[in-house]
This record gives sequence, C-alpha cells and structure tokens, in this order.
Amino acid sequence: MKISPLAPKNFPSMPPVAGVRLAAVNCGIKYKTRTDLMLAELSEESKVAGVFTQSKTASANIVWGKEILSHHSARVVIVNSGNANAFNGVCGKESIDRIVKQSAKIFDCKDYEIYPCSTGVIGEPLKDELITNKLHELKENLSKDNWQAAAQAIMTTDTFPKAATKTITIENKNVTINGIAKGSGMIAPDMATLLAYIFTDANISADVLQSLLKEVTDKTFNAITVDSDTSTSDTTLLCATGKANHNEIKDINTAELSKFKDALYEVMKDLAHQIVKDGEGANKFITVNVSGAENNKAAKTIALAIGNSPLVKTAIAGEDANWGRVIMAVGKAGEAADRDKISVTIGQTNIVKNGQLNPDYKEIEVTQHMQGQYIDVTVDVGISNGNATIWTCDFTKEYIAINADYRS
Amino acid sequence: MKISPLAPKNFPSMPPVAGVRLAAVNCGIKYKTRTDLMLAELSEESKVAGVFTQSKTASANIVWGKEILSHHSARVVIVNSGNANAFNGVCGKESIDRIVKQSAKIFDCKDYEIYPCSTGVIGEPLKDELITNKLHELKENLSKDNWQAAAQAIMTTDTFPKAATKTITIENKNVTINGIAKGSGMIAPDMATLLAYIFTDANISADVLQSLLKEVTDKTFNAITVDSDTSTSDTTLLCATGKANHNEIKDINTAELSKFKDALYEVMKDLAHQIVKDGEGANKFITVNVSGAENNKAAKTIALAIGNSPLVKTAIAGEDANWGRVIMAVGKAGEAADRDKISVTIGQTNIVKNGQLNPDYKEIEVTQHMQGQYIDVTVDVGISNGNATIWTCDFTKEYIAINADYRS
Repeated sequence: MKISPLAPKNFPSMPPVAGVRLAAVNCGIKYKTRTDLMLAELSEESKVAGVFTQSKTASANIVWGKEILSHHSARVVIVNSGNANAFNGVCGKESIDRIVKQSAKIFDCKDYEIYPCSTGVIGEPLKDELITNKLHELKENLSKDNWQAAAQAIMTTDTFPKAATKTITIENKNVTINGIAKGSGMIAPDMATLLAYIFTDANISADVLQSLLKEVTDKTFNAITVDSDTSTSDTTLLCATGKANHNEIKDINTAELSKFKDALYEVMKDLAHQIVKDGEGANKFITVNVSGAENNKAAKTIALAIGNSPLVKTAIAGEDANWGRVIMAVGKAGEAADRDKISVTIGQTNIVKNGQLNPDYKEIEVTQHMQGQYIDVTVDVGISNGNATIWTCDFTKEYIAINADYRS
Repeated sequence: MKISPLAPKNFPSMPPVAGVRLAAVNCGIKYKTRTDLMLAELSEESKVAGVFTQSKTASANIVWGKEILSHHSARVVIVNSGNANAFNGVCGKESIDRIVKQSAKIFDCKDYEIYPCSTGVIGEPLKDELITNKLHELKENLSKDNWQAAAQAIMTTDTFPKAATKTITIENKNVTINGIAKGSGMIAPDMATLLAYIFTDANISADVLQSLLKEVTDKTFNAITVDSDTSTSDTTLLCATGKANHNEIKDINTAELSKFKDALYEVMKDLAHQIVKDGEGANKFITVNVSGAENNKAAKTIALAIGNSPLVKTAIAGEDANWGRVIMAVGKAGEAADRDKISVTIGQTNIVKNGQLNPDYKEIEVTQHMQGQYIDVTVDVGISNGNATIWTCDFTKEYIAINADYRS
C-alpha cells in the first residue's frame, strides 16, 4: 500500500515523558512480518482519563475500559492490532480477563489499572495467549524512547505511524505531552478504529483530566470524519504520571491549566489531522468552518453534514467548484439556516452572499484552490453566533477500491 | 450514459386515468435534443395531496407548493428538467409567479391550482419564458396516453424513464392509479431530485388523500436511499380526479379504502425501487430488513444506518461477505440493540445468532448470494418488536466517476 500523499514528511522527534516507558513486539495475531503488540507502562499513582466509542455494539475492551475508569488509575496500556476482540460473544470478555490477570501479576498492580485495547478483524476470537506469552518480553524491552515503535505496532492499514508532542512549563517545570494514534485505513474485514493514547508527566487530578479530555476530544477527534462510519472500538486515553513535580492541579479554573489545555489541544488536533490525512484513498485534506448557526452544536451538525456528504466529497475529489452541493448539505442537516442569508466561501473566494451568487464570483479562482491539497469550505447560515470547525478528506475511487476490491 | 443493469426490461403499459391528460415538449432550458417540459392537466374539482423535501434550503417551488396545498385543489402540474430553480434568490419566486399566472390564464383556473416543479442545475435563474412560451403548444398536445413522454421529459440523468400502474375496483367501478417518477442519476452540478406524480381517478377526499400519501410515502420514497444526500426539490404529489364515479370516500377507515391503499403502496414502492435501481453507478439492489427494535421508527433508523454506510455499500459492491460492517452500522445507529442477542442473515444464510458467529455458517453461501443482483440483509437487534424495511443500492467506482470525474 502506498503512503498517503498527505502524510507528514517525518515521524516527529519525541522527548521522553517522565514515568512512561514503552515496548513493541511481534506476537503474530495476524501480521507476521511487523510488530503488532504495544505496551506502555506508567509509574505508580498515574492518573487516567478516557473517552470511548458510543457504538451500541462496542467491544468487550470498551465495556472493561468504561468499567475501570471510575478508579482513575492506570499502570499498563496494552494494545494489539490484527484482531478487534469485538463481536465474538463471551470469548471477548474471557480474553480480557486473562490478559488483565496476567498483566496485573507481571506488572505488580491492580486489575483495574490495566487497559487492554484491540483493533483489527471483528467477529473472531482473540488468541490472547499470543499476547500473554509476550508480557515478559515486553517488560524487558521497555524504554522511554520507544515512541515510534509503539506508534507502528498499533497500525492496521494506516499508511504511516502517527505521533505528536508539545512541551510547556508549569511552575517553571518542563511538562511534556506525547500522543500516538492510529486511524482509518482499512481492508475488509477490518474496521476503521480510532485509537489514541496521550501521555504526560503533568500532575493533574483525575477529575480535571477527564474534563479536559472530554472537552478537547469534542474539538479534535470528535470533529473529524472519514466516511461517517463509527467503530466498535474507538478509544482515547489521557494518562498523567505526575512526575513533572509541580503541585497537583485540582481545579479546572487554575490559571496554569490553560497552557496545558492549549498544548493538549495542539497534540490531539495534530493527531486528528494525521488520521484524516490517512483516510482511505484521501488525496485532499478538507477544513469545514460553519458560523452563524443557532448554537455551536448546530454548527457542528451542519459542518458534519457537509463533511460526510458523498456528493461534496466526490466533487472535491474531482476538483469541481460545485458549491450547490454545499448548499444541499446545509439544507439536509436539519438545523436552522436562513436560505436568503447563507454565504459560502471556498478558499479565499466568496461564492454565495445573502443566499445569492456573488456577482463578482470567478469560478477559476475556486477551481485553482480545489487543485491544491488543502481545501477550505466556509459557510455562514445567517441565524445566530454558533460556530464549529471539522476536518475530513475527499472521497475517491481509491476509497471504493480499498473497501470493495481488496479482501484480506 | 449506459442504461442501469438493474433497469426494467420495458416501460409498462399505462392505461388512461379518467380526467388526466399529459403533454411533453422540448423548451430548451438545458437539453437541446430531448423533451424537458411536461404538463399534466387535471379535470375540474381534482383533489391533491403532497409531500415535500425537509431541506432547510428548499427551492422556491417547494415554498409555493407547500403554501397552496391548503387549497387541496390541482388543475395543472408542470415540470421542467435542466434547472432546479433553487437557490437563485428572488429570481426563483419571480419565475414561479410568472409561470403560475400564465398557466392559470391559459388553463382557466386559479393560481393555487398550478403546481410548477423544477429539477436540474441549482443556483441559476430559471429562464421561465422558455416555459411560458410553450404553454399553448402543451395544451394543444394533451393526450390521455402520453405517459411515457411525460416520464421521459422529467428525467435529468436518469438512465431510464420510470412509471408504474395498478387498477382495482371500488363499488364495482374500475379505479386506476398511474405514477411517474424521476430519481437519482446526476452529473455535476446537478442535484439528485426525487420527483413523483401519482394520478388516480378515485373519488377520495383531500384529507384522506393526504393521510394516505404521508403514510405510504414513509414506507416507499422515504424508505430508499442512494447516498444519504437530500435534494432541495423533492416532491411527491397524489392527484385524484374523482372521475371513476364511485361515491366519495371521506373516512380513512372505509373498508374499500384498504384496496386502494394497497394498490397505491404497490405503485409507489415500484417507483421507489426503480429510483434505487437507477442510483448512480448501481449494480446491485439491496433490501435491508430490521426487526426486534424498540419501535418501528428505531428499526428504520437502524436500517438506514446500514443502507447509508459507505463501508456496507462498498463491501456489497465488492461481493464481500463482510458482516462485521453490518454490526458496525447497527452500533452506530444510536438506537437500542442488544449486542448479545443480535442476529444477522444475508440472503438465506444466518451468519450471527445471539451475538455470535453461527457455528454452521458457511461463507461460500453468502458469497454466492452476493454475486447476484438482489441482496437481502436481515438483522434482528433483540430488543422488542419494531421493524422496518428500506432499499438501497451498492456503492461503486462508477458513483465516484459520475460525481467526481465528469463536469457538465
């Protein structure tokens, strides 16, 4: 599989995060010639926050993760690729039980401090002994520098490993936020799964971490779409070791926290963008901005209606300045829009103003913008002040080829 | 453009409907070498019922149609193809005004008895004088037999004209229901628009007609999807001339009405299926049955989540027995589903039972079914008794080609 034309040039240089060590090995669940099992070990008293898929057919891993999250404590995150451990009946829960028991023993911690995640084929029992057999080897290989190896091991049909990092200071102490993620490349019968793991040495209470993660997820991972389909396994964890040695931040309104939140947003947005850039068959990265909606939620609904519309996404794939399809998508979103006040701008070119074609509109300007890799669609629906931004990719014949022609 | 492989072999033989005459001409709005303007004249005292797009950016025609529907009276339905008269600011309303005024004069009726409809390019002024100039010619050409000509004139990029008919008896009088429709082939910058016109000589009160049309539309035109995108112009009208000379049916519970309702359902379902069969790039016709949902509405939401999923539709295009994607779509629908009671059957083959792979499942059986033109996906979600059926088509590279590569 060729690497996405939108891939970053290099894997970023990732500093260590105090209290975090990683390892990756091949355990042979599906892939034979690459790593497929990643383990992150967190120092004692690490806090964790999590958000999980809303799917009604979520995997056993999701059920487990949601259950233990109330303890706010994580020591081990263990992720395999190649099998999603989803929709395989009681086997799913039994596999989780064995992985958790063994990991808790080897890493000397509580069951509820173990987060096992799986991504890959759905509907097949997970050969969990392939995972538990590797726990000792993983432990021996732990290193504070294994970020690229970890990002690679969780890939399914992603065409490049995804990572991002930011360092800030809190109380004059360096605080690092590192994130890795996998996304939305898939070959039948794999599922697109969004997995993201963010690690920081910040010292922040579990409640505050959870609030931050929820808020920032809504503006990053929950503001991207490749094909509108939702995985049974989507998981984002934010783990904080507290090793940066500043005083614990327990209040969401602490002034120092805003720097952390901004940096967390940058890391998560970077990862979210990388996932879109690795969307199946993606040739173009699309930013949809909606303003003038009844409220922010309505704006996001409209933005996602545009970003999920096959007609909009195919028009962009074809570099066609087809603004009528943007209007159509606004109309179908079901949120208030004033037909006679709508404006539509693509790139820097205003096309529609007050519900009518701008008399100065020159299609050639939009066509030139559409020939680039980064496409901006900006819509104002003329109702109130709600606004939102989402990101997506174009919809190409390669998407169909990946999802219809190939069979693993 | 090649005719859809799912097209019916022949245009059906359409009997006359007492009180209905039709004509079609070329008026040159966009197409130069084919008819593009259809007019149906209805006898005096004809009743009408209508359902219209829910789009928030609906065309001026939709606004007009909704407004006059309260009079329940129709004498003229006039439909052009090539320009949707949508999103062109005040021009849209002005075009409607002129078409209505001229038609009311020439056909000697009230403004509110004229239903003008338009389908085609969005965002451009409609040259309504091309239409009004042809009103006399249309009137001279009216014939009770012009069904095929009428169905052809309303096509945009449909690959075949769509019509259906049923005859029943009420009080020993023959009652005919004829319908024509256009659907969902499109070339940029055209929009998919569903237009359907049903004509009957039944004698039914306007209230009862409206109730019937709403109920049957929900199970037919509102139970199909090609690509989840909604047009600014979707319109279905049900016109009843009353010329069959049975006593007027004023009560929705009249025994004789159930035969009429069944026949109306058959005509509208037939047209709805033809629209799916002419979906862009369609090679396969897919029936999705959902049972066991919390209620019928929840079942339809789940069925549409399956029918709109690009991953399900590409898997079917690729003849891939990828049942995991069906489970994914059930999960993302947001309606109650019991993961451990779900069953999935494709064709006649049960794949998943009680949330687990059926041990007797043989993939080859499903693969053979997938190689046919008609694909059945049946899901029970194990909650209650809600059920629904929807129809869609597969998602092929031709869809992308039609919507991305071509430019009109």
